[in-house]
Parts: sequence; C-alpha cells; structure tokens
Amino acid sequence: MSDIEMIEAAAVRGEGHIRRTPLLASPFLDAAAGRRVLVKAECLQHTGSFKARGAWAAVSALPEDLRALGVVAFSSGNHAQGVAWAARAHGVPAAIVMPSDAPTLKIANTRALGAEVVLYDRENEDRDAIGADLAERRGMSLIKPFDAPMTIAGQGTVGLELAEQVAAEGVRNADVLVCCGGGGLASGIALALEARAPGLRVRTVEPEGFDDTARSLAAGRILRNASLAGSICDAIVTPEPGRLTFPILQRLAGPGLVVSDAEALAAMAQAFLRLKIVLEPGGAVALAAALSRPVAIEGSAVVVIASGGNADPALFAQALAAPQTP
Amino acid sequence: MSDIEMIEAAAVRGEGHIRRTPLLASPFLDAAAGRRVLVKAECLQHTGSFKARGAWAAVSALPEDLRALGVVAFSSGNHAQGVAWAARAHGVPAAIVMPSDAPTLKIANTRALGAEVVLYDRENEDRDAIGADLAERRGMSLIKPFDAPMTIAGQGTVGLELAEQVAAEGVRNADVLVCCGGGGLASGIALALEARAPGLRVRTVEPEGFDDTARSLAAGRILRNASLAGSICDAIVTPEPGRLTFPILQRLAGPGLVVSDAEALAAMAQAFLRLKIVLEPGGAVALAAALSRPVAIEGSAVVVIASGGNADPALFAQALAAPQTP
Repeated sequence: MSDIEMIEAAAVRGEGHIRRTPLLASPFLDAAAGRRVLVKAECLQHTGSFKARGAWAAVSALPEDLRALGVVAFSSGNHAQGVAWAARAHGVPAAIVMPSDAPTLKIANTRALGAEVVLYDRENEDRDAIGADLAERRGMSLIKPFDAPMTIAGQGTVGLELAEQVAAEGVRNADVLVCCGGGGLASGIALALEARAPGLRVRTVEPEGFDDTARSLAAGRILRNASLAGSICDAIVTPEPGRLTFPILQRLAGPGLVVSDAEALAAMAQAFLRLKIVLEPGGAVALAAALSRPVAIEGSAVVVIASGGNADPALFAQALAAPQTP
Repeated sequence: MSDIEMIEAAAVRGEGHIRRTPLLASPFLDAAAGRRVLVKAECLQHTGSFKARGAWAAVSALPEDLRALGVVAFSSGNHAQGVAWAARAHGVPAAIVMPSDAPTLKIANTRALGAEVVLYDRENEDRDAIGADLAERRGMSLIKPFDAPMTIAGQGTVGLELAEQVAAEGVRNADVLVCCGGGGLASGIALALEARAPGLRVRTVEPEGFDDTARSLAAGRILRNASLAGSICDAIVTPEPGRLTFPILQRLAGPGLVVSDAEALAAMAQAFLRLKIVLEPGGAVALAAALSRPVAIEGSAVVVIASGGNADPALFAQALAAPQTP
C-alpha cells in the first residue's frame, strides 16, 4: 500500500472509535497573530491527545491471535494513555513503560485505563531495551510511539480531516504548525496533506533546548538533544527525530520553529480564554509559534495542531496567572 | 410556523456560521457518575457559549432595513457577546446593556467585538426599562436574552444536533441536563427533542439559592429568586423563569435539579481533567448534577449540556486547586 492508502485504511479502522476533532477559531487569536488562525483541537481526542489515533491504528492492525497476547508501549505519557485505551477497547492486555518523572496524572490515568505501568529512570535507563525485553518475554507486540509505519499512518488521519476542514474554510495555501517530538504526528500529517491538500505545508514546532528536529532539518542529518529532562513540554521531548519520520519531514516539511516555555504557557492561556480548550505545554507550542513567530510564517492564514491537553492542574493555574492582554 | 419549523429555519440561517459542537465523553466521567455521560460541549461555540445561537437566529431574522439600524441587548455577559458577534457578522451596530458587576473579561470581550457597552446597577436599576429606552430612542431592535420566540428557536438548534448525536451513540432514552437561567436554552432544546427525540427529557439545573425554575416547576407557577447577586454562576442568574419559556418547561421538562457552588467548581475541574474543555460555573452546573445527583437522574445514560466557558482565570485556578480524585 502507498502512504496515503495506509492512512486511509487507518481512518476506516478508526471509524466509530476515533473522534473527528473540530477546527476552532477566534477573532481575538486572528488579531493577535496578524492572520487567520485555524486550530485543530486534537486535545479533544479520546485520552486527551492525538496519540489515541496512532495507538488505535497500530493495535487494530495486529493479527487477532497476536493481538490477544497484548501490547507493550514506552511513553512519557500521552502515547501510554492512547495504547492503554486502544488495548482496553480491543479487550487485550497492555503493559506501559513510563519514565518515573512522568506527571502523576498521566501515570494514574494510564493505570485507570487498565494498563500495567512499569516505571524506569529517564536519565540512566534505556526505555527501548526495557520495552523490547517485555515484548519478548510475554509475546506482547511493541507499539512504538512514533517510528513505525502504522503509528505514522494513524496520526496521519489528522491530516485527512484537516484537508477537508481547511478547504471548507476557503483556505488552500497555509503553513500547518505541528507540535513535534519524534515526528510521528508531523510526518503522518505531511503524508496526508501531500496527497490531499498539497498547498498546506507542515512546519514542526519544538521547545527551546529540545529542538532536535529543527536543527536536524537545518543540518540535513539527524542530530540529538543535549538533554532529555528539564522541559515543561515533557510530552514532546525525545532524543532525536525518528529514522522513518525524519526523511518524510526532510522531503515535505518547511523549516522547524522553536518557542520558549513562557510562550507555550502564554499560548495555553490564550487557548483557555479564546477557544475554551485545555492544552498542555507540549500541545500548545504550535499555537505559541502562531502567536509569537508571525514573521517566520507564510500566508494570510495559519493552521495550528493543538495536539494534547493532559495538563497538570498546578502548571495550568500558573499559565493562567501570567500577565495577559484581556 | 410550528415550533420545530422555527427551530429548523433557525438552523438553516445559521449554516456556515454556527458551529456544530461535539458530543464528548470520558470513561472517567462514566465511572464517577455511575452511568454513561454524554457532554455537548457548547462552550466551544462562537463567543464561548450557546448564546451565539439565539443571537444569530434573532439578528438574522430581522427585516434588512430594520436590522441596519442596529440591535440592543441586556445581559450578564454571554448573551452580550453573542449579540455583539452576530451584529458584527451582519455588519450592523450593537449596544449592550450590562450589569456593572459583570466579569471584566466579559465586558472587555463585548467591547472588543465592536459593541457599545452601557453599564447599569444590577440591584437598583431595571435593565428591561434601560434596554427598551435605548431601543426606542435609536430605532434599534431589542434582542431578548431568553423570552422571545426567535431566541428560543436559535437555542433549540442545540436540540436538533443532540437528537442526531445522541442517537448515533445508541442512546434513545435519557435525561438531558441543561444549565438554566431564564430558560431559553432549556425550552428550545425541549421543543426540538419533543419533535426529534421524544425519549430524551430536559431537566433544568440551577445553583443553590437561585433555583427559581426548579421551585416554579414544583409549585406550578412562576416564583422569583430572593436575590440576584452573590452566585459564582452569574451567567445563569435571572429574576424568574420567562413568560414564554416557563409554560414550555412545565409541559416538557422533568423536575429541576439544584447544585452547590462547590459542586459546580468540582465539575469545572472534571471537565478540565477529563474532557479538556473550559467551563464557567454557570456552564458547569449540568455536569455537576450528573456527577453529584446520580439518584435524582433516570436511566443508564445522561446527556449534559456544557453551556458556556467564559470563566474568569482566577476562579478557574481556584476550581483546579480544590481537592480532586486523580
């Protein structure tokens, strides 16, 4: 199957399970950004982030006898919830390998969704090795968070919806800002748009200090982040771009954008005030780029993927307390 | 035209302008409520509340020459923003009469939407008289917040969407909990459901101390609230049920429900955690009833209208800081 056929097949398997999330807008955001801002509210997806799409696509694609043995995933949290949710909906067990410093809420939610949680030390242990070992010992299938064709295809279903929704708004040419960790969402959307809306161009957005994709795109080769801890945008911190996702982004995505933690928090406040949606910092960096990097963006409209809403309540309150224009 | 024909005509006039808001759900809310909870996220409507529907229906129904003179409205805030938005989209002026103690954000938003704001004292002045005077002197049409057929028809478009969305979830019989001030939203939805989903029954939900509709329904006649100030649910505090809305609710709605301010705040936190939507206290009372009054509700599923999200940031942070189950 071609890339777009895989994405369309994932969309068909997700019918009745994956939510078609709304494309929101506000005249206040348009004024703040200096152009039309169309926001795909993927925080309203099941489990609070787009990760439910890739997880559903991967779990639903497993042969039934293999799927019955269960699935294993390693994740900073949102992928974990997505896989736990998809596994439970399929009636199969899930083991989730999570960093021990993941937000309490994400660990609790993953457990509440019926998954077994295996914690590890983000700085000193190799999550890939732990995940692979669990998979081998129990016969469970490893559901990768981004660097797997089925995961990319599932995230690409966001792009299929976008192509229709953005066209319905009369917009044909625009940058599509995508919060980027390993690049599964960005590359999946890029593949869908290549086939269905070639006037829309993906731009990755990352937090300062964890801009491996922006630097890798600029250098033309995969570069690593110097550190993996210390960002409030924990959901989108990964060591480096994926081996599968990076070539897709090299071919299809524009230059990467980078925003500060303060800009991500300000975008969370704007999403609260103007769109009435909850974003976590990692899910708000694309909106932050639309609001804070107007010169780096092309066109009279910009599309923003608001990719996740699993925000810590205390951090969210902090975002609301920062100075804002009323 | 019959009631349902008026509602359907309002829906047609709103096409391309009014958002079809999503029906959301979370297994965590289902577990907390002891039944399936389906939440119509009307906080995602333009201007952050369902009021945009009634305003659009009323403004779009005016004869063109009359509409050109502009519109006037009196409102605690959400209706104001709805009318300001609808007037601007039609290219006509709007004057909004607002209580001087309305949240700063709502006053600022109404002005930013291009309307002239006229402030009055909620305890000592009669907003009806002020609104009527403005209408007479300037030739502007008064857009009533709830007690007018066109406003009710516009709010009823929520019911048309609900009938389809709830049926798609396989639910035929359920209580539909509706945040209730003057009763425009509740009566409009009740009329739509009577025609399109007779197994769904509207139940009004109000804050303690401002439960004029619940008491009026129980007494069989219109009763007033003792006070009009002091509720955090400012968006749904009105003196008494409307002359048009009350008979509709008497005929079609079940017994009214009442929740405390603390329960409304807890529901805001749950909507944040589980649905990733922002609710204001008055827009959260229906969800509060679903979570806190399980015995008073009938059936294995309940439908909740999350009617508005124009929350004050400080109050929202307070809701998040209250103790919650993780």
